[in-house]
Amino acid sequence: MSNTQVLFVKRPIGLFNPRETFKIVKTPIPTREDLKNEEILVKIRYLSLDPAMRPWMNDTRSYMKPLGINDIMRGNAIGEVIISKNPQFKVGDIVLSAFGWQKYAVSNGKDVVKINPFPGVSISDYLGVLGLTGLTAYFGLFDSKVKAGETVVVSGAAGATGSVAGQLAKIKGATVIGIAGSKSKCDWIKNELGFDIALNYRDPDFVGQFQKATPNYIDVYFDNVGGEILDLCLSRLAKNARIAFCGAISQYNEKKIKGISNYPALISNTARIEGFLIFDYQSRFPEAIRDISKWLKEGKIKRREYIINGLENAPEGLLKLFKGENTGKFLVNVGDDVKAKL
Amino acid sequence: MSNTQVLFVKRPIGLFNPRETFKIVKTPIPTREDLKNEEILVKIRYLSLDPAMRPWMNDTRSYMKPLGINDIMRGNAIGEVIISKNPQFKVGDIVLSAFGWQKYAVSNGKDVVKINPFPGVSISDYLGVLGLTGLTAYFGLFDSKVKAGETVVVSGAAGATGSVAGQLAKIKGATVIGIAGSKSKCDWIKNELGFDIALNYRDPDFVGQFQKATPNYIDVYFDNVGGEILDLCLSRLAKNARIAFCGAISQYNEKKIKGISNYPALISNTARIEGFLIFDYQSRFPEAIRDISKWLKEGKIKRREYIINGLENAPEGLLKLFKGENTGKFLVNVGDDVKAKL
Ligand SMILES: NC(=O)c1ccc[n+]([C@@H]2O[C@H](COP(=O)([O-])OP(=O)(O)OC[C@H]3O[C@@H](n4cnc5c(N)ncnc54)[C@H](OP(=O)(O)O)[C@@H]3O)[C@@H](O)[C@H]2O)c1
Ligand SMILES: NC(=O)c1ccc[n+]([C@@H]2O[C@H](COP(=O)([O-])OP(=O)(O)OC[C@H]3O[C@@H](n4cnc5c(N)ncnc54)[C@H](OP(=O)(O)O)[C@@H]3O)[C@@H](O)[C@H]2O)c1
Repeated sequence: MSNTQVLFVKRPIGLFNPRETFKIVKTPIPTREDLKNEEILVKIRYLSLDPAMRPWMNDTRSYMKPLGINDIMRGNAIGEVIISKNPQFKVGDIVLSAFGWQKYAVSNGKDVVKINPFPGVSISDYLGVLGLTGLTAYFGLFDSKVKAGETVVVSGAAGATGSVAGQLAKIKGATVIGIAGSKSKCDWIKNELGFDIALNYRDPDFVGQFQKATPNYIDVYFDNVGGEILDLCLSRLAKNARIAFCGAISQYNEKKIKGISNYPALISNTARIEGFLIFDYQSRFPEAIRDISKWLKEGKIKRREYIINGLENAPEGLLKLFKGENTGKFLVNVGDDVKAKL
Repeated sequence: MSNTQVLFVKRPIGLFNPRETFKIVKTPIPTREDLKNEEILVKIRYLSLDPAMRPWMNDTRSYMKPLGINDIMRGNAIGEVIISKNPQFKVGDIVLSAFGWQKYAVSNGKDVVKINPFPGVSISDYLGVLGLTGLTAYFGLFDSKVKAGETVVVSGAAGATGSVAGQLAKIKGATVIGIAGSKSKCDWIKNELGFDIALNYRDPDFVGQFQKATPNYIDVYFDNVGGEILDLCLSRLAKNARIAFCGAISQYNEKKIKGISNYPALISNTARIEGFLIFDYQSRFPEAIRDISKWLKEGKIKRREYIINGLENAPEGLLKLFKGENTGKFLVNVGDDVKAKL
């Protein structure tokens, strides 16, 4: 038995090639003797795949330092404590942290959170609807101060973040228009999640459909994608519109970012674009988890997971994320036993 | 004696041609008999030339309805009441309103403001530092919540709005970098207005100079120009930066707006762009006028005017505004007597 680790070995330019960007290595599984005081050994069960992983690969100034060559690939994961030299954690604890892309992770317990799922949620939900993507939807949407009756547009609407953002806007009484990349995604957000309108941006007539769908223009745009869809939304702003700028996935693999041209509309509509990062909200996570948990129990928030099996498949999985193969939260099931899914 | 009026006669595409866009006509000067009850006749002294006049010419959705073909050109002006059938105004009152490009204007008194200059200011100041451009600087800059020690960048820095915005940022204790289009403008804002750094965006090495001038990045960007300078500022944002988006003059005469590419930096720096319009601040004008008046008296705010003579020259004057011939507030002296300048 050995540990598997995925290393980031080459900085890509443009669309990354999973086989060139990453290297899978086998290393010994750390033993009790290898652990220092305060350290724990965690057997990883689920790994979160996130669009931000692509910008982390760039050697540019950002909110986190760039990945270093030969680093274990950075990433949030959930696992089970199997050895503990830290009094705060005991064997069997389910824990979440940026454990990275590996089957077994050593941690000193810093920034490690214990997970206690309640009936109706699984541990993997803490990487999705009750994890960073759900919280991102919560703070991004609510800080845009959406009011009942307003028109809210969400892009990446069938993804982990977008699907929650749209449902939160419905809870607030807004009219919600979701934009996603396939008919089946549109069906899901409209028929199961209760979005008022769902539009497929790959439809040839998408722009016309979008204009027709926004006769009163847009009060809030929750933007997961940037690029052309952002530019289109800028052309349909209502007075005092707010753009919660969450992500720009459409540009993450571009060698050269395509500019947005309709930005002067921000002046004529006294509108704003506001970028935000979930890490800045840490102190308010409990309130968000409390609210989302309640809405999950009441059936007001639904979620889906898209799970691939095997850590070895994470590099290809990350590429699939950018191709839009997921509906809902993209996860890698790292555990090699069926028990992995609690 | 006759009235002179400048009509907007043709919607331009791209850079406007003053001779094709406008037509100068002579009409009779209204007499007391022509005026209805509540109406006043105003002899115009100063006309304000504003960059926004170009976007008003476009037949697109905006914060004001587009100019209609054959409309008297819209514009703010200051003049003297010479006939009054409105009890609120008496002959000799100095008044300000959107009287338009004409020597004599009839008004029903609605949205007409009486001007009472105090020692040290001239009536024309009420179209500049004590008028919409000064107020625009005031609200745009202060709503960006600039704090002492922060780095503030102002574009269009030697213009009517920018020159005041930069001085207000100095009053708040910020480090202020001004960007303008000539050496003499840069000298003025640095040596006379007290900007810390002044950069000429026409210098071949401007981008390098700008990067060197912002080692701690930008906390507040007061943007008058949009375009490439906005894109450059987006590449130099500090954490939680705020862009007070006032104008995009660099694009007003463009057939196709050039996109900005560095906008994803809004996310990684949790920064925001906020468009605003001075008309939304009407209820707070008194506080701003009180503060600016005080700073004028104390010599903490200085201003310049660039005045051309003759209403007939207003069309060419507007073009000069876009060529950057003005330092400070661009005005047309409409009065044909020397007394016009009080
Ligand atoms: N600000 C923060 O703190 C924060 C935190 C978490 C996530 N985010 C951002 O939120 C966004 C969504 O993240 P997520 O984790 O929830 O991922 P996700 O939405 O579950 O998955 C990504 C989705 O993006 C869509 N997509 C891919 N390429 C696209 C393109 N060129 N144009 C339009 N859509 C495209 C795909 O769906 P389609 O089939 O619809 O194309 C894909 O399923 C990302 O931009 C991410 O960086 C930000
Ligand atoms: N939001 C509002 O409510 C509001 C109210 C008033 C004004 N504004 C905006 O504020 C800005 C300044 O207006 P203002 O009345 O104070 O005019 P101004 O700055 O006094 O005059 C315009 C100046 O813009 C500069 N300029 C022209 N073309 C340019 C280009 N391509 N790139 C960079 N700079 C260029 C020129 O100076 P250089 O020599 O430096 O190029 C010119 O002197 C305008 O964008 C206007 O629309 C907004």
